[in-house]
Parts: sequence; structure tokens; C-alpha cells
Amino acid sequence: MCGIFAYLNYFEPKTRREILEFLIKGLQRLEYRGYDSAGVAFDFDDGAIEIIRAPGKVRVLENAIWDRSDFNLDHTYDVHIGIAHTRWATHGAPSEFNSHPQRSSDNNEFVVVHNGILTNYKDVKQFLIKKGYTFESDTDTEVIAKFAHHLYKKQPNIKFRELVEQVIQQLEGAFALVFKSKYFPGECVATRRGSPLLVGIKTKTNLISDHIPIIYSSKDLHPRQNGLSTNSVVGGKLARSESTTQFTPLNDDKMVEYLFASDASAIIEHTNRVIYLEDDDVASIEAGLLTIHRLKRTLDDTSLTREIQTLKLEIQQIMKGNFDSFMQKEIFEQPESVINTMRGRVNFDNNDTVILGGIKDYIPEIKRCRRLLLIGCGTSYHSIIATRQILEELTELPVMIELASDFLDRNTPIFRDDVCFFVSQSGETADTLMALRYCKQRGALIVGITNTVGSSICRESHCGVHINAGPEIGVASTKAYTSQFISLVMFALVMSEDRISQQPRRSEIIQGLKRLPDQIKQVLEQDCQVLELAKDLYQQKSLLLMGRGWNHATVLEGALKIKELTYMHSEGILAGELKHGPLALIDNSMPVIMVVTRDPVYPKCMNALQQVLARDSRPIIICEDNDTETQKYSFRSLQTPHTVDCLQGILTVIPLQLLSYHIAVLRGCNVDCPRNLAKSVTVE
Amino acid sequence: MCGIFAYLNYFEPKTRREILEFLIKGLQRLEYRGYDSAGVAFDFDDGAIEIIRAPGKVRVLENAIWDRSDFNLDHTYDVHIGIAHTRWATHGAPSEFNSHPQRSSDNNEFVVVHNGILTNYKDVKQFLIKKGYTFESDTDTEVIAKFAHHLYKKQPNIKFRELVEQVIQQLEGAFALVFKSKYFPGECVATRRGSPLLVGIKTKTNLISDHIPIIYSSKDLHPRQNGLSTNSVVGGKLARSESTTQFTPLNDDKMVEYLFASDASAIIEHTNRVIYLEDDDVASIEAGLLTIHRLKRTLDDTSLTREIQTLKLEIQQIMKGNFDSFMQKEIFEQPESVINTMRGRVNFDNNDTVILGGIKDYIPEIKRCRRLLLIGCGTSYHSIIATRQILEELTELPVMIELASDFLDRNTPIFRDDVCFFVSQSGETADTLMALRYCKQRGALIVGITNTVGSSICRESHCGVHINAGPEIGVASTKAYTSQFISLVMFALVMSEDRISQQPRRSEIIQGLKRLPDQIKQVLEQDCQVLELAKDLYQQKSLLLMGRGWNHATVLEGALKIKELTYMHSEGILAGELKHGPLALIDNSMPVIMVVTRDPVYPKCMNALQQVLARDSRPIIICEDNDTETQKYSFRSLQTPHTVDCLQGILTVIPLQLLSYHIAVLRGCNVDCPRNLAKSVTVE
Repeated sequence: MCGIFAYLNYFEPKTRREILEFLIKGLQRLEYRGYDSAGVAFDFDDGAIEIIRAPGKVRVLENAIWDRSDFNLDHTYDVHIGIAHTRWATHGAPSEFNSHPQRSSDNNEFVVVHNGILTNYKDVKQFLIKKGYTFESDTDTEVIAKFAHHLYKKQPNIKFRELVEQVIQQLEGAFALVFKSKYFPGECVATRRGSPLLVGIKTKTNLISDHIPIIYSSKDLHPRQNGLSTNSVVGGKLARSESTTQFTPLNDDKMVEYLFASDASAIIEHTNRVIYLEDDDVASIEAGLLTIHRLKRTLDDTSLTREIQTLKLEIQQIMKGNFDSFMQKEIFEQPESVINTMRGRVNFDNNDTVILGGIKDYIPEIKRCRRLLLIGCGTSYHSIIATRQILEELTELPVMIELASDFLDRNTPIFRDDVCFFVSQSGETADTLMALRYCKQRGALIVGITNTVGSSICRESHCGVHINAGPEIGVASTKAYTSQFISLVMFALVMSEDRISQQPRRSEIIQGLKRLPDQIKQVLEQDCQVLELAKDLYQQKSLLLMGRGWNHATVLEGALKIKELTYMHSEGILAGELKHGPLALIDNSMPVIMVVTRDPVYPKCMNALQQVLARDSRPIIICEDNDTETQKYSFRSLQTPHTVDCLQGILTVIPLQLLSYHIAVLRGCNVDCPRNLAKSVTVE
Repeated sequence: MCGIFAYLNYFEPKTRREILEFLIKGLQRLEYRGYDSAGVAFDFDDGAIEIIRAPGKVRVLENAIWDRSDFNLDHTYDVHIGIAHTRWATHGAPSEFNSHPQRSSDNNEFVVVHNGILTNYKDVKQFLIKKGYTFESDTDTEVIAKFAHHLYKKQPNIKFRELVEQVIQQLEGAFALVFKSKYFPGECVATRRGSPLLVGIKTKTNLISDHIPIIYSSKDLHPRQNGLSTNSVVGGKLARSESTTQFTPLNDDKMVEYLFASDASAIIEHTNRVIYLEDDDVASIEAGLLTIHRLKRTLDDTSLTREIQTLKLEIQQIMKGNFDSFMQKEIFEQPESVINTMRGRVNFDNNDTVILGGIKDYIPEIKRCRRLLLIGCGTSYHSIIATRQILEELTELPVMIELASDFLDRNTPIFRDDVCFFVSQSGETADTLMALRYCKQRGALIVGITNTVGSSICRESHCGVHINAGPEIGVASTKAYTSQFISLVMFALVMSEDRISQQPRRSEIIQGLKRLPDQIKQVLEQDCQVLELAKDLYQQKSLLLMGRGWNHATVLEGALKIKELTYMHSEGILAGELKHGPLALIDNSMPVIMVVTRDPVYPKCMNALQQVLARDSRPIIICEDNDTETQKYSFRSLQTPHTVDCLQGILTVIPLQLLSYHIAVLRGCNVDCPRNLAKSVTVE
């Protein structure tokens, strides 16, 4: 997840200083979407394009800009397009060269900012290298700028918009892009697929229509619609087209400003008039005219126009996207964040292949190891617990799991043929990092699983997997957990690729992964029921969560979330241990949440449920939606769809994330900054 | 721990039925000391001795006795000695042949009941086998009867008491013994070393003196005392000795009954007049006359007599030995139970050797293994956590620890070169047993660590260690935990015996083990302070216990005890994980107990302490007694003596055992039978 921002002023004169201030302000609003490096591209003297980039937060970039003394900040532009980017690294560590805008060549002929992940960039890169291009960054984005350059060289008379259309036809993966080129001064093309992108329109007078017709390049579907195909609305006036007569221009005011951004937070302070682009829309601005193009019309295209909407939200609201807190936003982002984790890695259509680029070359060595060790703290440790069984099953290796602090306290013996995984959202968790160094010193192979490219754990690992969940702002980890979970499952799938006997199981899991985003959405739809439940529970002193097998990690993670956010004493208990002590706690006053899903330990869970019921408890049960048997024993129940056993924990943890959130709100706690806690624990 | 009972009637006629009823009643009172098998020996027709024994509880023996039709229950004896025993197996599984009384030969010439553990029985057995004796049991006790027989054959004119004196001079270990012989009808000799033994005296008239002089066989210390050497008191009269004239017999009533028992519970309903025998006392009854002999006087012998005391206690009180509950009793038994665990295994004086007879032959195989797996449930699992680090350190092998239920749920991969330990007090814990079978099926070497010889885990293991803690009646495990802990430490010591570099460490640990019983006593002396603390805490809803490193297991076990007994929501938290979530719970109202000892993680614990203090918490600290630094931060503190790091957990867990006990009592909970829980969990 990165933040894109672009600003185009058309006959609305601005100094270079104003433009740069504009771009910096936009990036600051988007900084929560990524903050490991940032950059801007703007017009320089003699029609050249200048790029300024810097690793670190936007503030670092800002200083770098104002420190430059080689250009005149007071130079005024009537027409100008500036693009900007704040990055959350997915390919290539944070560095100046890996920052955006990425460029086609040393003289910045095409520059582009990108949010998303290209999955076929290596093929495109290979193609371009053969054509003589040399690459300066480790990013997936650089191929876009260079490919545009390559196509332009072959078709020097092409329109900018057509060029971009040709480029994106060759791209796979997710992207939102804004292009700028020295060959098309004052023009700008933006497009998206999978990643969000908005256009803000600022004019002094009202627009005559709130609907921008879509222009289809191919005429194969509804020929009659093509009459609209050249309509476009620009600042206050409607661009004429042969067949459209129903709109009349109000005046001849040419002045207009356009803003492109990943979300409305960067736009709202300038204008409240925005268009939400759809996948594969290509928005082009030429001579101050905005047009929206699509290659061809499909049956899914029910609307023939893109509506200009009026935002009625506060900046704070927009940043958190209709959510009250980053944590809530991140919970609801999970249908997308899990897709990002799998993007370009799990091939759902073709042969059930899974490729983890970051560890591909190490797989043979990993397969020869004596054992796998997985090490983490807090929520990351829970993701390890959650996936231990599938790792054991698919790798057929001994899998040891360790809390980093305990692992260090014990001076655990480590051997040269061990493979050690270190899981950390930030990649900077001190205990985990120390454990990594301890293992590295002893000759083990080090695999990092983090959400932060370029973090210490990333840098010091031999290889690793980036979970691509996007930046997580809420202190209590939510989407990082599910993405860590999926990353480890993908690793297990990679390890078993060569085993014929495991193909049916792998296939089942991959199909499960495919259904996951929709199933997560289904779970999130129960938010209201969870709120009702939270109202029942929020005044309690204690809360017990019970589960076993695949759901053991779920109850530990659920209890941790509730502890962190609500300061209520909650504890996750392995249901199998109930009889060895914790059952004594159960009576009709102790609130109990049980997770019972239809997996091989279902009968044992039902046993535990009966024991709890026999002590007059009124348990709240999280179960599968078709499991009426279990529901009939519950006081309240929350349902999740059924999926493969090893993925069920992803679906069952979400109601608990929501529950902790709602309880915290009801108790008046600060959800994003729980007391006493920090997002990334960089001290031992 | 077994129960011994014997009954001698002298000119107080009793039918055989009455005598047997008497013996059964005695055993029932002692049954809490052991209940895996029981037996009696009594006079048969023609001067022979009959033995009836049966595995199982005393009730099974009782049925076996009344089912016999081959003797006349109404036969009356003027003088008779019957001995009886209820067993808690230490050597040899519960079976008829391993039950006591043990005998010298098929025709029961010498029969003996024994409570304790002989450490040199193998040597004696070897000697006797050379002399032509064949053994029918696996017990250590059988050598006693056979050795008495052997000595008697060589000295047919020896007195019974002298014979026993000769026998016990050759015995090492702990014992309380009562002998009966067909060669000495109506006579009985009893003795003890390490194990308890009482004599009850029942007469119709008062005794003329409450002090029974001790008769010393050797005259090397205080020759002047030998004047008393043949004094003895019998039922109401004083046996004359040449030099004693100060006592006058009151009458000529010969009628007297004697009772021998492991504790007063079996005596109190018959008489309240008892003598507590001291180590190496030999009590002999010949012609109705009780005399107490010692081989020689030492400087420690401050008293020249054994006082006849008048018991003023209720039966219930005596059974629990001045304690209100079995659990409390078992907590206070720990100075002795840890000695029993180490008896005959740790050689403190000689070369730091440690021998675990039950696994000795398997050590080379264990040393060649790929990894050690330790598996248990509840408290047993905590003993595994507590010793994991020392096992890793001294074996230099990967050590994996597993909760049995989770281990099974996960279908964990097990390999032929794994060594799997199964820890269970009862040896019948269903989950642990299922896990054992799972591992055995997969070809792993199975090691059982139990407190119950002959239990399923014992029988199904390839080898094992019996922890010898004695029967544990309280549902919440206390002394079994410390004994399991020590057993696993002893295993680590055995595994490292051959490593020169580890000798200093081993030596340090063995010295620590030696000091342990006295240090446990020191900790137990703080019972009053713990009670005060309990008064502060008992109305709380929640309690957090924190520790790390060697004390991680301590806080988990402490929290489990409090949960089990007090139904208060307590949780053990790894202090290293504090910053990853649980710290949010801390404020000035949440009670916190921290365990901080002077080991390598001391600075990290102090860190955690500072973090807790910074959140206005007033922590209760368990620390070492010379650690004023830590004490000054504590709201209250409990101190333990310092010992080797890897044993410190034994000392720090005891205050928490006491705390859970006192809180439970203050909250009005049934300590021995917490709600919802059973002692041994034999269902999955």
C-alpha cells in the first residue's frame, strides 16, 4: 500500500514553490499509507522533468526539496503537472533509487508513480533488458516507465492516453498509476486495476453535469452508445462532441485544477468534487480536458458514465475511510490485504502453483534441514501457532515454535542445519531481531517474514517473504496477522509442491485461499451482531476464550486483542487443557467464548462445550454457519463460512478482532493507541 | 509412601475375625498413604503364618479375606501378632507378589512390611541369590525378609531383636519395618530410619511411667547410662532391671495390646498413648514387654528415653497430620518428598554421580537421538517447561515440549530416532497416554515419568523414572510438581555425566539439590507472611503473575494453582511478552505478582518490573532473600533462599502453592476437591 498524489493546474497560474507545497501536503495526508520513502516529479527548466526522492518519511523529502538551491522556486507555470508518491516497500528496500517516481531513463522522459504490485514485472523486465534497457532500481514499477518509453520510441505519434492503454494491457497484478512525460507537457494519464485512485476536480464555477461519459475504444458491444464516446466534462464546460447536444457550456472559463490521489484525504481540502475511477479506467487530461476511456465495454459495465460525487466528509474521516480508527479500517481492509499477500504468488488458475520469489532459491536448502524453527512475539507468535500444524503436515519436518524472548532467555541450542523463521510485522521487533542474530551466528539459515521491506529483519535475513499487508497504523495488529498466516501457509504449499501424495490437499488449500477474500467479507458483514455481543460483554471483568486444534491460535490472538485494547482480563485457553485446571473457573457468571469449527477436533470441542455447559455457563460460540448442532447450545453465536481446516483460523479470528474493537469503544478506550503499548517494540 | 500397621494382643484374647477386622480397619485409616495394593500376615493353624494380599484398594483385600473359607474365623488367640500394609509402589508394579507383607520363603518363616525405599537392595539381592535364594517379587523389600532368614539360619539361637539389628545394619535408604516370624511366635520387632513409625500402647490401667528408657547395645559413649539398659515398660508395669528400683509395678495385670502404624490415624481410635520412634530405634516386644534398643549412643542422642505421649487429636486431623487439608499437608511434605525423589539416585558424597535405575540401560540410545520431546498436561507440563532449559543445556539436544492434547490434535510428526518423555503424576492421564501410544506406534523410544508404579504410562513405556513423591491426594498437584521437576533435572545430570566441560555445572547443581530440602523448609517457614498476603488478595477478581527464564514455569504453575483452587482469574505471563500486549492490563488496581531471582535474566526482569512500576502498579515480588535491591521496589515481598538457577523454580513455586491454598481457604473453597476438577483426568 502506497500513496499516490498528482496535481495538474490548467491556466490557474502557480509558482514552483506553490506546486511543491501542494505535492508535499498531499503526501503528508497519504503518509499513513506508507512512509518508508517518498518522491516528487515536476517540470524543470528547458522542458525537462526533475525528480526528487528520499528514503524516510515525507518530512525528509520536504527538507531535501527546500535544501535544493539549483532552481527558482518563484518560477510561475500556467499549466503544470506534478506527481508525487509516498511508499510502503514491496519490491526493493527503501532507498532513493527504489523510491517513486520511477523513470524511463536518466533524462526522465517518462515518470510514473505506482501503488500496487505487478506480478509479471520480471517477464517485462527481461524483455526490456533484451531491448537494451538497464535498470537502476529493484522495484516492479521501473518496468512501467521503461516500457512506456519503449512503446513511445516505436510509435512517436501515439497519444499519451493510447500509450498508457498499451502499457497496461501488458501488466499483470494490481496498480494505480499516474504518468507524466516530457513528450506530453501539461498532460497526464492515470489508470488503476485493483488499487484505488480518485480524481478531484476544482473549478471556480459549477460543472454543468455530474456524469462523465465513458469512451470505449472498441465498438463491439453496444454500438449505439458510441455516440457518447467523445463527451467529456472539463472545468465548468462540456467538451463538445458531434452527437451530444443536450449540454450547453455555461461559460468559457478555461481555469481548472485536477488532483489524483489514492484516497480522498489528500483531495478534500482542495475540492469536494471527485470521481472514483473503476478498474481499467484510463483517465486522461489533455489541454485541460478530462476524459475517461475504457478499452472495451463488457457486460459488467452497467454504468455508462462516471459520476462526479460531492464528498461530505471530514479529512480525519477520509483518512480512516469511513472508519473511526485505523484499527477498524485495517480490520475491514482484510479482504484486500489478503489478496495483496497472495498476489503474484498463488496461481489460482494454473496448476495450483505457488511461488514465493523471496525464498525460491533457498527451497532446496530448506528441504534438507533438520528442523524448522519459527520465532516471533505477540501476535506474530500467534500466527506461528496458527500455521504450525499445516507446516508439519506439508513439510513433514519437525517444527518448533518459540517466543523470541523465551528463546533468548534459554540460550536454546541451534544447529547449522536448522532453518529459522523470524516473523515480525515491523521487522524491527527487538527480541525477534536479537533471536535472529543469535541463530545467524550459529550458522542457521535465516528466513524473515515481515510487512516492512528494508527493515532490520529483512536486511539481515538470508531470504524471506514480504507479507504485503500494507502499512498497519493501529497498535493492535489485525491485517498483519491474517497476512502472516497466509504467508506461512503459502510457504507450506511451496514446500510440498513436489509431493504427488499431497496434491489433493494442496489443491484444496489453494481453492480455500481463492475463496478467502469473499468469505472474509461475509464475516465482516456480521459487524452489527458483534457490536450487540460487545454490549453484553463490555462491563465484564474477565473473559475466557477457548478453542483447540486449528483454533488454538485464534483464541490466544483474540484474548490478546481484548487485553490490549479493552484492558479487560481475557485469556485464551487450549480447550484440551480445560480439565487440567481452568474448568474450575467456569460458573454461570464467567463469560466464555468458544470457537468450534467442523474440523477433526470437532468432537473434542463439543466435549469441552458440554463440560462448560454442565457448569451452568452460557457460552458464546463462534462456529460455522451451517452448524446448527453447535448453535443450539450457544447463548449467542457468531458464524463464519466453512473453509479448509488450516485456513479456518483466518475466518474465526475476525469476529474476535471486531469484538475487541467494539468492547474497547464501549469502554471508552483509545483503540489506535492502547495505553502502555507501542506499535513496534524495538527494545528488549 | 506406604502405610504400615501391626497389632499385637497379649493375654487379651481375640478371635481371628476380630484380629483381621482390626488390621483391615487400620489399613483403611492409612489408605491415603498408598492404595495400589494391600496385604496382611497373621497366624495360621500349626504355627504357620498366612499371608493374604491383593492388588487394589483395601476393600479388595477385605473381600479377598472374607472370601477365604479355609480357616476358622472364630479361632481365639490369647497372644497374636498380625501385620498389615497398604502400598504405594516404588519398586515393582502393583501385583499380588509385589504387595506386602514380603516373605523369606514359600512357608513364610519371616514376613515383613516396609515403608520407604532401600537404595542398596540390588547388592543385597545379588548376595542372597549367590546364597541360593530365589526372588518372587520386584520389590526392594523382599531382600529384607530373605536376609533375616539368611542370618537366622546361621545363628539359630539369636534373639529376634538382635536379628533385626543385624539386618538393618546392612540396609541403606529409608525404611520403617515391622517383622513377624514363625520362629518367634507372639513376638514382634519394629524399626525405622527415615520413614515414620509409631507404637500405640493400650492397657486397662495406667502406665507407671511415661518414659521408656533406651537400651544401648554398645557401651562406648556414656557407660553410666547402661544401668538403664534393660528397663522397659509393659502394660501398666515396669519390667524389672537390676539397676532400676525407682519404679514399682502397680499390679500384675499382664493384659496389653500394642499397635504399630505409620501415623497416629490408625491408632487413635484404640488408644491415645503412643511413642514416636526415632531413626534407628529398634522396638521389640517379647512376652508382652516393649523395649527400645539402639545399637550405640551418639552425641546427637540427647534424650535417654522415649516418651509415651498422649494424643489429643481427632482422627481427621491426624490423617492430615495437623493440616487442614491434604493439599496443605502435601505442600509441607515437600522437604521429605524431594528427598525421596533423590534417594538412592543422587550420590551427594561420592563423585557427583547420579543413577536413574529405571533408564540406565537406555542412556546410550537416548544420547544418540535426534531430539527429546517432553509431553504432559497441566502441572506436569509446567514441570517440563521448568526443566526444558537445563535439559537443553546439559543434553545439548533439541528439546521440544508439548501439551499432550495439542500434540494429538496436530498429528505431530514423530520419527524413529525421537525420544519421547511422558510426564504424569497418576500415569493414567488420558491425553498423555494417548500421546504415548501415538509416539510408540511411530517407533520412538518412550520414557515415562510418573508417581504411580504400575500405571498405564509405566507399563507402556520402554523405560522411566518413578518420582517417588508418595501418593498425592489433593486434586491440585504440589509435591508431585517439585518431584517431577527434580526427576527431570536428574535426567539432565545423567545425560551429561560423561562430559568433562560440564562437570563444574553438574557439581554445582548436585550441591544445590543437596541443600534443597533445608531451603524448602526455610520457604515454608514464611507461611504466615503468605497468609497475610492472601488476606490482601483474596477479594480480587484477577491476578497476574509474571516471570521469565527459569521462573516462567513458576508463574504458569502458580497461576494454575490459583485458578484451580480459588476460582480467581489468574494468569501467568512471560515477562518478556509484557510489551507485546499484556502491559495494557496494568494499572494501579490490577494485582501483580512478579518473580525476580538473581539469574542471567535478572536485568531483564528488573526492566519488566520498572515498566510495571511506571504504570502505578504495586507489585508483590518473590525474590531472593538477600536481594534488597528488588525488595525496595515491592509493595510486599516473599523471599526464597538462593540456589542454582535451574533449581530456583522449586523454591519460588512454593510461596505460590501456599498463596493459592490460603486464598482458597479465605474464599471458602474446598481445597482438596476444587469444583469441576478430578485428580486424575482419565478421559480425553
